[in-house]
Amino acid sequence: MRSMGRVAVIGASGYAGGELVRLLASHPEAEITLAGGSETVGKRLVELHPHLAGALPDDLTVEAVDPQTIAARADTCFFSLPHGVSAKLVPSVLETGVRCIDLAGDFRLAAEAYPEWYGFDHPSPAWLAKAAYGLPELFAAEIAGAALVANPGCFPTPVILGLAPLIAAGLVEPERILVDGKTGVSGAGKASDATAYAATEESVRPYRAPRHQHTPEMELYLEVAGGRATTISFVPHLVPAVRGVVCTCYALLADAATTTDALTGSLRDAYAGAPFVRVLGPGEMVDSKRARGANLVELQAIADPRTGSAIVVGALDNLVKGAAGQAIQNYNLMSGLPETTGLSTAGIAP
Amino acid sequence: MRSMGRVAVIGASGYAGGELVRLLASHPEAEITLAGGSETVGKRLVELHPHLAGALPDDLTVEAVDPQTIAARADTCFFSLPHGVSAKLVPSVLETGVRCIDLAGDFRLAAEAYPEWYGFDHPSPAWLAKAAYGLPELFAAEIAGAALVANPGCFPTPVILGLAPLIAAGLVEPERILVDGKTGVSGAGKASDATAYAATEESVRPYRAPRHQHTPEMELYLEVAGGRATTISFVPHLVPAVRGVVCTCYALLADAATTTDALTGSLRDAYAGAPFVRVLGPGEMVDSKRARGANLVELQAIADPRTGSAIVVGALDNLVKGAAGQAIQNYNLMSGLPETTGLSTAGIAP
Amino acid sequence: MRSMGRVAVIGASGYAGGELVRLLASHPEAEITLAGGSETVGKRLVELHPHLAGALPDDLTVEAVDPQTIAARADTCFFSLPHGVSAKLVPSVLETGVRCIDLAGDFRLAAEAYPEWYGFDHPSPAWLAKAAYGLPELFAAEIAGAALVANPGCFPTPVILGLAPLIAAGLVEPERILVDGKTGVSGAGKASDATAYAATEESVRPYRAPRHQHTPEMELYLEVAGGRATTISFVPHLVPAVRGVVCTCYALLADAATTTDALTGSLRDAYAGAPFVRVLGPGEMVDSKRARGANLVELQAIADPRTGSAIVVGALDNLVKGAAGQAIQNYNLMSGLPETTGLSTAGIAP
Amino acid sequence: MRSMGRVAVIGASGYAGGELVRLLASHPEAEITLAGGSETVGKRLVELHPHLAGALPDDLTVEAVDPQTIAARADTCFFSLPHGVSAKLVPSVLETGVRCIDLAGDFRLAAEAYPEWYGFDHPSPAWLAKAAYGLPELFAAEIAGAALVANPGCFPTPVILGLAPLIAAGLVEPERILVDGKTGVSGAGKASDATAYAATEESVRPYRAPRHQHTPEMELYLEVAGGRATTISFVPHLVPAVRGVVCTCYALLADAATTTDALTGSLRDAYAGAPFVRVLGPGEMVDSKRARGANLVELQAIADPRTGSAIVVGALDNLVKGAAGQAIQNYNLMSGLPETTGLSTAGIAP
Repeated sequence: MRSMGRVAVIGASGYAGGELVRLLASHPEAEITLAGGSETVGKRLVELHPHLAGALPDDLTVEAVDPQTIAARADTCFFSLPHGVSAKLVPSVLETGVRCIDLAGDFRLAAEAYPEWYGFDHPSPAWLAKAAYGLPELFAAEIAGAALVANPGCFPTPVILGLAPLIAAGLVEPERILVDGKTGVSGAGKASDATAYAATEESVRPYRAPRHQHTPEMELYLEVAGGRATTISFVPHLVPAVRGVVCTCYALLADAATTTDALTGSLRDAYAGAPFVRVLGPGEMVDSKRARGANLVELQAIADPRTGSAIVVGALDNLVKGAAGQAIQNYNLMSGLPETTGLSTAGIAP
Repeated sequence: MRSMGRVAVIGASGYAGGELVRLLASHPEAEITLAGGSETVGKRLVELHPHLAGALPDDLTVEAVDPQTIAARADTCFFSLPHGVSAKLVPSVLETGVRCIDLAGDFRLAAEAYPEWYGFDHPSPAWLAKAAYGLPELFAAEIAGAALVANPGCFPTPVILGLAPLIAAGLVEPERILVDGKTGVSGAGKASDATAYAATEESVRPYRAPRHQHTPEMELYLEVAGGRATTISFVPHLVPAVRGVVCTCYALLADAATTTDALTGSLRDAYAGAPFVRVLGPGEMVDSKRARGANLVELQAIADPRTGSAIVVGALDNLVKGAAGQAIQNYNLMSGLPETTGLSTAGIAP
Repeated sequence: MRSMGRVAVIGASGYAGGELVRLLASHPEAEITLAGGSETVGKRLVELHPHLAGALPDDLTVEAVDPQTIAARADTCFFSLPHGVSAKLVPSVLETGVRCIDLAGDFRLAAEAYPEWYGFDHPSPAWLAKAAYGLPELFAAEIAGAALVANPGCFPTPVILGLAPLIAAGLVEPERILVDGKTGVSGAGKASDATAYAATEESVRPYRAPRHQHTPEMELYLEVAGGRATTISFVPHLVPAVRGVVCTCYALLADAATTTDALTGSLRDAYAGAPFVRVLGPGEMVDSKRARGANLVELQAIADPRTGSAIVVGALDNLVKGAAGQAIQNYNLMSGLPETTGLSTAGIAP
Repeated sequence: MRSMGRVAVIGASGYAGGELVRLLASHPEAEITLAGGSETVGKRLVELHPHLAGALPDDLTVEAVDPQTIAARADTCFFSLPHGVSAKLVPSVLETGVRCIDLAGDFRLAAEAYPEWYGFDHPSPAWLAKAAYGLPELFAAEIAGAALVANPGCFPTPVILGLAPLIAAGLVEPERILVDGKTGVSGAGKASDATAYAATEESVRPYRAPRHQHTPEMELYLEVAGGRATTISFVPHLVPAVRGVVCTCYALLADAATTTDALTGSLRDAYAGAPFVRVLGPGEMVDSKRARGANLVELQAIADPRTGSAIVVGALDNLVKGAAGQAIQNYNLMSGLPETTGLSTAGIAP
């Protein structure tokens, strides 16, 4: 008989950490044996996330953690920490033999990209080189054998999934791709003045363009998956929503006569066996609301022959397929479990 | 080995019907064998509720139904139909031996109340008299043995649960109770001009006061549960939310010296074993957001000795504990299953 | 020829301060000659309130202020400061001969009420005793001659306006009135974690009950206006909106046979000449959205003869008729201007 | 002494019609002498737009209108009707000598574009050829002398204003421009199931791509203003807001070394005297919320030298600068009034 996997969640107080806890609480093959944090040490998880009362052991409490404690109490460790913090902590935990899944951006890029895009020198290029990029639909084999998985960003997930098959098939050009992202406030990790209710209602605004740190992540993995050098200009926007990311990608068609049906067919072939990808048909339109609470990405592709453009749109719940759900999907692969264990594509609507 | 219960859902296209389908889709002891409707006949459930794609058989299609079809294909039938429609259809289904759970208001009151509060003469007083009121925390025994369960309204559920123990214990007076309700738009069952986004954002407004049809339902079951004649003035309000009901009840303390602790203790005693009721302690405040997607009611009681008042507040997700979740809780009781089968108190937040 | 009034706004960075600036910017008889603050000293008003760029002098900058500066540069001073701060500053400004309008709660109650409801001993009982309560529909004469006007709270404004005429006319009983308030987040003055977008969307929650500091304000001025001792139990709730207050008041009818028409008629008589009060007829329902941006309170009264209750509902924009607009209405009266100068009842919708 | 302009508003019941009425009600040089409609004939304007009670004559009532009635009662006529309806009615009104401002798309394109983009053959190519395109910042002279002004669409307004100067200056390439639009629900003109509150909250979704009818309007006037053939691929998205449009435009820099400062400078030069255009500096980001209720477009331009792209973003209130406010700006020009008469750049926030 297999025993339950013992998992630690470090950084359990933010939005993504809370979603990890929510999903792990009902995962049939995992048990949260340790919750780690800093400012919230001593608080019970059900205080931090009162919507989970009843679903968690009432006395599960945030602890200050070190690698030895984690090694003693867990087989796998999820990290949901600010960028730059993970890079320092994760390697020491990996050295103890605990498998690690990092939700920050700290193990996603090449070492030389960190000063420019994240503002720090990477402290552990060796482990960085060994990390698998946790996009299971494209990199399942690497993930299954990895000690360290870098869970993708919320924007790169739909962009890479939507464009990689089309680039690989030679249907769209890999240079000069434009990506326009829209996100709800939970993508920011935690509350701030900029995401106050009074500031956010009726507000649509771009931010951090054109230097958002997800840009090189999209370029890198599209290049890996598509096989050709890729350049992306990316502008994210905040919209009045809590959850939900929609990325609209504009690329040049390699052949202006390519049809929407051909693009759609290419995506359908690519994700024929993927339980968490839904490719919409012509005439349908993605909707972030449908994916709320679900481990799901909706994709659609549209050919605009008039301008020779391909429009590829992806939608997901940034806290699930864009963060915690995908992390658990990676956990399942790393643990030899069916990929869908503890995950659902059913959203909550209306 | 027990076989899966075969259940029919009649009226599957509205908000509550969709939530029934969502919850039944993951219920381990029930299988939706029939979906019935009128205007949506021929549509697949996953078209009507695309957030459930993948969680339902792709070909489950709305059919026009009659009692014989229901009897041939289901053991239990849920009805999520407009008021007045259920009253005509349910009795003929009951005659076939199928157990029925009605989410409309058609089997909740005494026959003589229908002309005044619902605007029709009840067509089946005999079945009305046999219906159990489906508030499991108070009427589990009647529900377990019933052929017909009248699922409570979204407003009466927190009001009756919050006040009944205090009236029964003699802590608050049953006369001249004021109930102020707040609800999101999904309580209306389906979309209308009044609940358009442009009309609802930034809008708080009362409606149908003082003649809302949930008023006599609150009075009747508080009288049954509390043992004393009760009068209630009830004003519901629409607020800018999709889900969520908060009812704030104002009653006279029998003894002005009664404390918040005493009121809280009375509620805690009453619901000590109830898996879907959370009684908050002094200083905590209910929040409808915490219950979103969960089969849960949060209750709190506050003594205001300065005015001799008791303030009792209840919050729930109107589509779950206020409709579909409670219906499944009733189904579990009627089926001899553990009350919590297929239901969770974990909400989705933020 | 009359010269423009020189006005100072102290505390211009919060929500109410911003609304004061917005309304004063287009007031034909007032000119903002001084903006005062503490944390925002040195910032230009158009930086703090970028929605007002173009409507304000570009170089109007927040200054640290003292009474002498105010006296040298302004004839009238508006204070939009946290409770307890005004009480210390306003008297010294009054001593210089500048007329003052205070938007905090610091000059609304009797001195002995402050320790219990506001948590401080009032530092200036003498000025407190001279303050006029700035509800122009009831106290215009006092306001016109006052050196100091205490601008009412957002909740008390609709409650007192709705109930005072009915109590004065003997139509409703003044004891055991229940007031249920709903407010958007801007009532909190500025942003906080509790009013983050992620915390507020889909959340309805009571707060600070039964000890909200607006309670004694309602009681005091209903007693003054209605002539009889009044007790109120008040529960405010936060709803997902930026602006808007709706207060639903429940009182006993003196004669249970009193009709909605009689209550409505009494309110209409009371406010026949009031430009900023709209009394709705039977069948209409107040809506906070209609008043957004307008100096307007909507009132309606409903008799519930079945329970002997009167239901009186008032709606307004808490930043306008509930704060800044009312302050300017008071300014007009104090300055001998027509009451409606610079104020409009036209809201912005949808 | 000049007399007030007599204006008619045909189609006063929708969102844009209501905003026209709101702004005209406080316009110092215009008087609404006639309101026309079809389904709402006989209704008073204050019933249709209750937020305007007090700001309009109480008895101003929607009438069924014909050209003779309009000619007898008005000098200028605003039309806020569905596409295709204006094209039939406006010419007969023009024949009477009344000046016309059309808010539909019926007089914006060349005749041959209508079958493809609007689905009808244009009934009046002669008047179409005489129409001035009502974007005052670019076409003030034509507008001032026109009998018929075609008021621009909400999406084209920020796109053309943002890109035209940069194309004309040779800073960006006119081919293969991508435009990503985000809009609140009021852009749809009136409520529908797709914009129900329950469908819209937490929903971001593209629509009508790549065939939205604003596409050729952008191309045509960018070509006119910029002097070079332009192709645009445009994807609009619905976001959870009532008002507000943000358009993010992606174009190729003619010279990859062009800086953000150079782009910003070009826009600032172009709109140095324009009262309703605000060009943001480097580091600032547009925000649709700031423009709410204001006749204002915020523009910003960002160079992305890494990819050789220019990113140009524009934000406005679709009902004001994107519809009714711009129509009044055109009215002012046609009437020889100062362009800013009755219009403000001050928004309402929060």
